[in-house]
Amino acid sequence: MSNTIGELFKLTIFGDSHGTAIGGIIDGCMPGLKIDRKKIALDLHRRQGGDDFFSTARAEKDSFEFLSGILNNKTTGGPIGFIIPNCDKKSEDYDDLNSIFRPSHADFTYFAKYGTSESAGKLHASARIFAPLVLAGAIAKQILVKSNISITAFVKQIGTISLNKVYTEIDTNTIEESPVRCPDKETTKKMIAYLEKVKKSGDSSGGIVTCVIKGCPPGLGDPVFGKLQASLAQAMLSINAVKGFEYGSGFSSAVMTGSEHNDLFIIRQNRLRTATNNSGGIQGGISNGEDIYFNVAFKPAPSIRKKQKTIDRNANTIEFSSAGRHDVCYVPRAVPIVEAMSALVLTDSFFKYKAYAEKL
Amino acid sequence: MSNTIGELFKLTIFGDSHGTAIGGIIDGCMPGLKIDRKKIALDLHRRQGGDDFFSTARAEKDSFEFLSGILNNKTTGGPIGFIIPNCDKKSEDYDDLNSIFRPSHADFTYFAKYGTSESAGKLHASARIFAPLVLAGAIAKQILVKSNISITAFVKQIGTISLNKVYTEIDTNTIEESPVRCPDKETTKKMIAYLEKVKKSGDSSGGIVTCVIKGCPPGLGDPVFGKLQASLAQAMLSINAVKGFEYGSGFSSAVMTGSEHNDLFIIRQNRLRTATNNSGGIQGGISNGEDIYFNVAFKPAPSIRKKQKTIDRNANTIEFSSAGRHDVCYVPRAVPIVEAMSALVLTDSFFKYKAYAEKL
Amino acid sequence: MSNTIGELFKLTIFGDSHGTAIGGIIDGCMPGLKIDRKKIALDLHRRQGGDDFFSTARAEKDSFEFLSGILNNKTTGGPIGFIIPNCDKKSEDYDDLNSIFRPSHADFTYFAKYGTSESAGKLHASARIFAPLVLAGAIAKQILVKSNISITAFVKQIGTISLNKVYTEIDTNTIEESPVRCPDKETTKKMIAYLEKVKKSGDSSGGIVTCVIKGCPPGLGDPVFGKLQASLAQAMLSINAVKGFEYGSGFSSAVMTGSEHNDLFIIRQNRLRTATNNSGGIQGGISNGEDIYFNVAFKPAPSIRKKQKTIDRNANTIEFSSAGRHDVCYVPRAVPIVEAMSALVLTDSFFKYKAYAEKL
Amino acid sequence: MSNTIGELFKLTIFGDSHGTAIGGIIDGCMPGLKIDRKKIALDLHRRQGGDDFFSTARAEKDSFEFLSGILNNKTTGGPIGFIIPNCDKKSEDYDDLNSIFRPSHADFTYFAKYGTSESAGKLHASARIFAPLVLAGAIAKQILVKSNISITAFVKQIGTISLNKVYTEIDTNTIEESPVRCPDKETTKKMIAYLEKVKKSGDSSGGIVTCVIKGCPPGLGDPVFGKLQASLAQAMLSINAVKGFEYGSGFSSAVMTGSEHNDLFIIRQNRLRTATNNSGGIQGGISNGEDIYFNVAFKPAPSIRKKQKTIDRNANTIEFSSAGRHDVCYVPRAVPIVEAMSALVLTDSFFKYKAYAEKL
Repeated sequence: MSNTIGELFKLTIFGDSHGTAIGGIIDGCMPGLKIDRKKIALDLHRRQGGDDFFSTARAEKDSFEFLSGILNNKTTGGPIGFIIPNCDKKSEDYDDLNSIFRPSHADFTYFAKYGTSESAGKLHASARIFAPLVLAGAIAKQILVKSNISITAFVKQIGTISLNKVYTEIDTNTIEESPVRCPDKETTKKMIAYLEKVKKSGDSSGGIVTCVIKGCPPGLGDPVFGKLQASLAQAMLSINAVKGFEYGSGFSSAVMTGSEHNDLFIIRQNRLRTATNNSGGIQGGISNGEDIYFNVAFKPAPSIRKKQKTIDRNANTIEFSSAGRHDVCYVPRAVPIVEAMSALVLTDSFFKYKAYAEKL
Repeated sequence: MSNTIGELFKLTIFGDSHGTAIGGIIDGCMPGLKIDRKKIALDLHRRQGGDDFFSTARAEKDSFEFLSGILNNKTTGGPIGFIIPNCDKKSEDYDDLNSIFRPSHADFTYFAKYGTSESAGKLHASARIFAPLVLAGAIAKQILVKSNISITAFVKQIGTISLNKVYTEIDTNTIEESPVRCPDKETTKKMIAYLEKVKKSGDSSGGIVTCVIKGCPPGLGDPVFGKLQASLAQAMLSINAVKGFEYGSGFSSAVMTGSEHNDLFIIRQNRLRTATNNSGGIQGGISNGEDIYFNVAFKPAPSIRKKQKTIDRNANTIEFSSAGRHDVCYVPRAVPIVEAMSALVLTDSFFKYKAYAEKL
Repeated sequence: MSNTIGELFKLTIFGDSHGTAIGGIIDGCMPGLKIDRKKIALDLHRRQGGDDFFSTARAEKDSFEFLSGILNNKTTGGPIGFIIPNCDKKSEDYDDLNSIFRPSHADFTYFAKYGTSESAGKLHASARIFAPLVLAGAIAKQILVKSNISITAFVKQIGTISLNKVYTEIDTNTIEESPVRCPDKETTKKMIAYLEKVKKSGDSSGGIVTCVIKGCPPGLGDPVFGKLQASLAQAMLSINAVKGFEYGSGFSSAVMTGSEHNDLFIIRQNRLRTATNNSGGIQGGISNGEDIYFNVAFKPAPSIRKKQKTIDRNANTIEFSSAGRHDVCYVPRAVPIVEAMSALVLTDSFFKYKAYAEKL
Repeated sequence: MSNTIGELFKLTIFGDSHGTAIGGIIDGCMPGLKIDRKKIALDLHRRQGGDDFFSTARAEKDSFEFLSGILNNKTTGGPIGFIIPNCDKKSEDYDDLNSIFRPSHADFTYFAKYGTSESAGKLHASARIFAPLVLAGAIAKQILVKSNISITAFVKQIGTISLNKVYTEIDTNTIEESPVRCPDKETTKKMIAYLEKVKKSGDSSGGIVTCVIKGCPPGLGDPVFGKLQASLAQAMLSINAVKGFEYGSGFSSAVMTGSEHNDLFIIRQNRLRTATNNSGGIQGGISNGEDIYFNVAFKPAPSIRKKQKTIDRNANTIEFSSAGRHDVCYVPRAVPIVEAMSALVLTDSFFKYKAYAEKL
């Protein structure tokens, strides 16, 4: 297990879907930071989803409690321990799952790795453990915003329906208005229609999230192995169900020539800028001051109502169908997770950047 | 700077394009491993390229010297220090570059981060520093092969020319026979024709490398933040010019439904297997015993003969064209780098896996 | 802040003296370990002290709750999150302290480092945050005992009263019978008499704890910078109030000659042993199979009833005397902390050892 | 193996006594630092010793070569790779040692840990591998001196002869004038007389080194597990032959009462200071602006001319005497190693300190 991310701004998380609470410890936050609890609650709520037809119905909102590191709503500089109660846990749901390895879930691999503790996969591999991460990311965002760094993610694709705009053309204010977090009314409609069809057939849908980081100064990232894009990739591929990451021109760069792809330098408003941004705001592993943007691909949720044939632990072929609640498409709910992960990576990079920023 | 990769099997590299040698230190290799120097030399040579029209002409092959950790051709258990002489360095090439920021190179960002040391980008950001990594990867491969784990990468796409076969259909023996490391004669021909055209226009081309890891047992990878795909993604995005990473179904999973995407379990030869492998051999961040495979996207080389307008450090618009040697397409030369990176990640994961493998 | 210890068996702690709970996360514990809660409770109780005249009176025993990583009393392999409620907190005690820097406390340095969050020192620097560490150590002991590794610490000196026996001459069963955890009746009496005198004068006393690790196989420890004694030293010097560490012959080795100090090899019961053990069970940074033993020096508690002159934050000279509860001598209560720290270091070393133990 | 020290200012070393060179990589040095090669050469020479009767005779001085990270005598910000040639190696010396485990050397434990590679202990456990560390420390000192932080170590005790002055009473300029690096003429004479006697009897002597760090600002060190004294202790106990570490009042604090030990705050030259410095410049794990000082105990060298009985690998009792060169007392030569280790720890702590120093 490896439940810590970051080197200077460090988050360690814990949690099982069956425990009384999940939570984490943020180590390395500077002292004196005023904490806006509403923004934390908002991001937690965004991750929960639950209001819409395509998501799991849930009884109540995640609450959270700080156990240390915050006094009078300000960070003390000490480790911030926090918990998020598991109000809605239904451990009995898992009992009948113990005899089968659900297809494309972590059940088999956790069993293979952790042996006798056969339930670990169902417990710790749950998407619910990203709630502590979203909480920590919400604090990281509050650090970054003081340096005018903002992070915004949205849904760019659901199944076969794709937003046909680049990120510079969208109105970010419309993201949260869309039930699928897609900042375009027409595309939102099509996505919903698509999801209704998928839902009807007892199936699930994948998708793509785009994330944009604005205001990042030049200088973040540590070559060779701490390149900013490498840290972002590691963070994104740590999110359950993520299958791919690309930044800037991404996979489409493969078909381009150098003369098409090169971002030529220009002077704009007395500052060195690039005329295009195929580099996605990162060159040589270090931020160059342009917008950082990247795409994250999510596979469709493996839990579906549709029946599928698989094998139980006794090697018998069985027909299997996921009971209980599950999302038709969790991609909209992944938006705040992608943002939180980005915020953690950026904050850690920022702290490292500062360690070398001025001469001793 | 962050020049170390791995936690138990650790590589730290150093090197500037202008120094007398580049090199590294491998820390954590088990003792008693017999070292096959020919295989190391072969991989170093594969990275160098240089025989073909689409690559940089180079005078001589990389040699290497072990300074510690190997006695009578066997590892001692101590750190393996090694150097690769820089026979072919032409430091004067860089002098005239100091006044401009080459487009889509690391010149500007290194300047922004490392300030007065304006040449760092040209020195340490050079692709040449991946030679030590290839050497270390060649040793890691020799560790893995003892557990029947093999790693093979090949070129899947160059510019607009793509191999229309999945990895299970190719003959890996033909990879090295192809001057572009594409295991298909027809596609190779088309790629060469494409590159000739690109070369003629003084331009460069991107591409995609596919990597396949066979024989990996179930159990490697450490959730949540050390998921095997996350470590692979971090390693791949650390390679110069890489813009994207996807494993298994990758970005194509976004358009699939759960019932299409799920890898149903079956029994094959008395072993639990999956009927399909959209998971790319990894579920819940842990290897499941199936083939691990992934794609890595490379942007076209930024150094081209074609003239481009950019800005020098005095904010004057200039016309710029890369002099000296440079590759029309370095994607074939990236193949051994992708393999080496994979081998480092797998070996480190294997060592961690062993730390928990049996009860104390 | 740096609240994590260990690389493979990792503990991260959090906690303020004023919060509703303190706690931690153990990451990297193997699955399937049966947890003996009574032994955990016992060690927590040993740290609390409170029954005797020389210790702080406390209302109730520390309880603890596992929030994740344990199912049906067995570890799952996932992170073990746990909390220890702060039943007995008296935050008001700290309010009047805010205006002064208590002598030889962390108040000033925390203020210097964490600035505006002036109370951090009083909150996080509290000895109470070692309770989570003792809990984690109690789990580590349960791992080690499966390999017949045992860890026993005792009080060797309090103030001017010293136990005149080497560790091989003592009966470890008598440690807990002694109210000062000294395994000798006569010395215990003298220590108590000494502490009564110290208490009467409103003062406090330092002391020395000896720790003995038996059953450690040869091979633990990682040269050069992960030498077993270096990891133990780092762990011990992390304990509040510790001023020195020595292992084996320790400081007394300075006056010895090589011929006196060398541990000559002999054969005993068909095993290679050493005739003496000045090496303290470690040679070249690696355990050699003999007993590991070391001493840890504790300064006297800075909080005393006796009045002392110091400076408040406004630079006024004031007379200061610690109000509220405090220990005349916390050295006996440090015994389980020293054991816990040792157990964490040993377990982490054991896991690393296993990672290389067999050939792949 | 664990050959890396530091987190932000990181040193990784390699080297065997038999290779053509030893060396290391410094990662994380800021760019633009002017390197004074003479100071590096001086410290390397101080470690070599060799001029005096009590030390090993050596043919020539260590030279060194930077392979990367330094351009026109200034750091570039990239990793600094360097080598120190092994001019004076005599590999044949080791051949006849292969059949015995030298008493109190690392031969047996390296054999136990690294198995078949039986010579690793003799190769990598050699004190010679501290030469790269001294080189890196000499660079770290050049970083620290820019913030007016100075590090000075000296010999406080050799065998039974001890310097009867506290560090504040000595004239540091006299340290290097003394052939035993003891800043007192009378004590030096006695130490030399003592060592002559020890040498005559074919034996060796231990000793104690004191190190003083002046000019360290308040705020360095990271509680709980990165306390400044804990990092120093880990570094010191990583040095071959070190058996103990104490800072400030150290082991003598055990016999003191709180009222004797407390460092009362006073105002001196408009700055908050402490009247005494039993704290050794560190409170709660964080530097307080006073001098940091500590003692490091060294055991006598295990290699002696005097014959001793031990066991060879075939379990035969043999008489053993160390042939070849060896020191009667290597404590004076350890002085620059203690300084170098301190410089590495301080620089790393300083960089971490800066990462949080100002608000984002």
